[in-house]
Amino acid sequence: MAFQKPTGTQDFLPGKVEKWQYIEQQARDLCRRYNYREIRTPLFESTELFQRGVGETTDVVQKEMYTFEDKGGRSMTLRPEGTAGVVRAYAENKLYGEPDVSKLYYMGPMFRYERPQAGRYRQFHQFGIEAFGSVDPAIDAEVIALGLEFFRELGLKGVTVEVNSVGTAETRANYNETLLGFLRPMRDTLCKDCQTRMERNPMRVLDCKIDHDKFVDAPSILDSLDEESTVYFAKVKEYLEIMDVEYTINPRLVRGLDYYAHTAFEYKAQGIGAIDTVGGGGRYTKLVSEVGGPDQPGIGFGIGMERLQLLLEDQEVEVPGVQPLDVYLLALGEAAEVEVVKQLFKLRKLGFSAERDYLGRKMKAQMKSADRFKARYTAILGDDELLRGEIALKRMDTGEQQTVKMDELADHLK
Amino acid sequence: MAFQKPTGTQDFLPGKVEKWQYIEQQARDLCRRYNYREIRTPLFESTELFQRGVGETTDVVQKEMYTFEDKGGRSMTLRPEGTAGVVRAYAENKLYGEPDVSKLYYMGPMFRYERPQAGRYRQFHQFGIEAFGSVDPAIDAEVIALGLEFFRELGLKGVTVEVNSVGTAETRANYNETLLGFLRPMRDTLCKDCQTRMERNPMRVLDCKIDHDKFVDAPSILDSLDEESTVYFAKVKEYLEIMDVEYTINPRLVRGLDYYAHTAFEYKAQGIGAIDTVGGGGRYTKLVSEVGGPDQPGIGFGIGMERLQLLLEDQEVEVPGVQPLDVYLLALGEAAEVEVVKQLFKLRKLGFSAERDYLGRKMKAQMKSADRFKARYTAILGDDELLRGEIALKRMDTGEQQTVKMDELADHLK
Repeated sequence: MAFQKPTGTQDFLPGKVEKWQYIEQQARDLCRRYNYREIRTPLFESTELFQRGVGETTDVVQKEMYTFEDKGGRSMTLRPEGTAGVVRAYAENKLYGEPDVSKLYYMGPMFRYERPQAGRYRQFHQFGIEAFGSVDPAIDAEVIALGLEFFRELGLKGVTVEVNSVGTAETRANYNETLLGFLRPMRDTLCKDCQTRMERNPMRVLDCKIDHDKFVDAPSILDSLDEESTVYFAKVKEYLEIMDVEYTINPRLVRGLDYYAHTAFEYKAQGIGAIDTVGGGGRYTKLVSEVGGPDQPGIGFGIGMERLQLLLEDQEVEVPGVQPLDVYLLALGEAAEVEVVKQLFKLRKLGFSAERDYLGRKMKAQMKSADRFKARYTAILGDDELLRGEIALKRMDTGEQQTVKMDELADHLK
Repeated sequence: MAFQKPTGTQDFLPGKVEKWQYIEQQARDLCRRYNYREIRTPLFESTELFQRGVGETTDVVQKEMYTFEDKGGRSMTLRPEGTAGVVRAYAENKLYGEPDVSKLYYMGPMFRYERPQAGRYRQFHQFGIEAFGSVDPAIDAEVIALGLEFFRELGLKGVTVEVNSVGTAETRANYNETLLGFLRPMRDTLCKDCQTRMERNPMRVLDCKIDHDKFVDAPSILDSLDEESTVYFAKVKEYLEIMDVEYTINPRLVRGLDYYAHTAFEYKAQGIGAIDTVGGGGRYTKLVSEVGGPDQPGIGFGIGMERLQLLLEDQEVEVPGVQPLDVYLLALGEAAEVEVVKQLFKLRKLGFSAERDYLGRKMKAQMKSADRFKARYTAILGDDELLRGEIALKRMDTGEQQTVKMDELADHLK
């Protein structure tokens, strides 16, 4: 029986995987510089954590989760996003008891049962950060800037950030009233979901993919910001300007769940087809207490790695891939082969990447193999050289050849 | 509600996670030198893949799998080990069509519903390699050596490798007969599992944890090796000796599944309590065809990262952890704070790790923070310095202080 990977999943094979490694390395290095440290949480969590932490009414929780009962009869779910688990770990491990702001990053697979399409997979990967414990607007600006730097350092062009404030709980209560005044007259023309949202949480109407265009003239939440929210938002913008981070204000960028407050933002990219959001995040106030922790605020973002890959391809950005091999060793004759195995192992111990043939192939086929591995050098050992303790070394880019002492081979490879 | 991580899973928090990163980096570098390239397969696969690839009669498949139905009604299972998915990917992506031996490595989470105990988790992590397409005994020796080097380079002492041959299918048929002759007289004294195994596959009796001691005088499979197996095993041993790899022969190290052939090996460590196996692997002949590929052989190993961690702790091996911060910036006054945010962002762009306070703390508390981050330097900006375009720089290890030009700060940090 020929098995296949599950629909909506990918194999990352050599050739492609090196590009992912590079991107991850960039993310790690960026986090190092910004003093964010990695956190790894389990790939599955109790289902209720996501119901609480992502939001019971969201599409993710209602339609897209990989939920299963474990053998102990507990309902578990493969994580559909990164924040809930990190917030749970922050609370459970009492990181809030540490004297410094917890600046964390995560990277890895997430799972949503969605209809697969370009850049969208059932197992997908996110890079995200979360900073807990600070209400300094400078950290909002830092989080926004870090994401933008990530795209910029990878070599992407035209990635912008849209910023908004959803203010305090009071701001949102006032805004929902104002918005309802605008929505009520058009109620019957709206989709069913929007009609439900109008009752539960009117702000979420603005996210509707169907009725989106009808809300162009909707009132702006920025006109509803209270004093505290206005001051906070002004500070965030000021810090962004200090850091020379370009941004645009998008007053319709709202996050409807009750956890969110103040800063909200999305990274936008042109030229990725229908998909123009490549990441986003915002500040939250009640998420930590919702999962059982104290009343500590947080702010973070999540960036989808598959969409990022699509964007890199689209913009034809050269992502570093396979590293060249230092040396490919060839043996002519049985005694030479034994010596080659010995040398191979020795060179690897010294830090060189080294390879030989394992298929009993002729010399010509082995040389082709060396080419495929982009070998910097080939070293050929025949029985004559073996007797003299020497080996023939060829530099592949220049074609230059020389015979060197076997025990000086490593020096020549440097 | 206070949420907790699922039983048998772990959070890897800052402080601990850096050690994991270091170990993974070591594994990656080792693979680079040996010319193994990473492959990443989905975290779940069709259940049947593991039934075929791991073996229907194994404890893993019968008792320990996280199996669930996806929303399309297909039975899926979180991978309980790494080989089956890699073999599936090798076959499905037709890597056998490439001219070189496929030398692959993988790293990441696996899932088994087991009773948690020291070093054993329900989500655990493995590092493994697989080499497909070669029947050169040198590659068996290479695979064995790579694993041993991994332990050695991490600084572990006393990790040894036990090697055996389970020969060809003919060898095993002969051996099973011989073994039955030994087992039949003691049949009634054996556990139920062993009695079943005697009928299905007598060799697997030797793995029994209950009756283990009764088989000390069992016949050795090495006495049943046919000509081909003897020659192959001799070659493997010869290559190990050429590479100065120390090993012991353990004739009772058998792998009962039909896929396996020739080389089998296990890494053993002392001082890890009851657990003394820290990894193992072997050669297989029919696994690729079992999952739908052509008749291609493979050989590989898997190493459990949690047990490895335990061993490192047990032997008190110093694993590099948190990197020091390059500089911690302090501001005295509002104008200085704005400039500090600007400098912070600039230094990070230049590649330095840099941090400031986000909690509005007093200077003394900020200095403590710098200490916790192991800052190499602190830089203090007051309003006076700001006017002169300068900043006070302190080297933390020597206590040496100097006032430097703001735009030369980066040069001083190098």
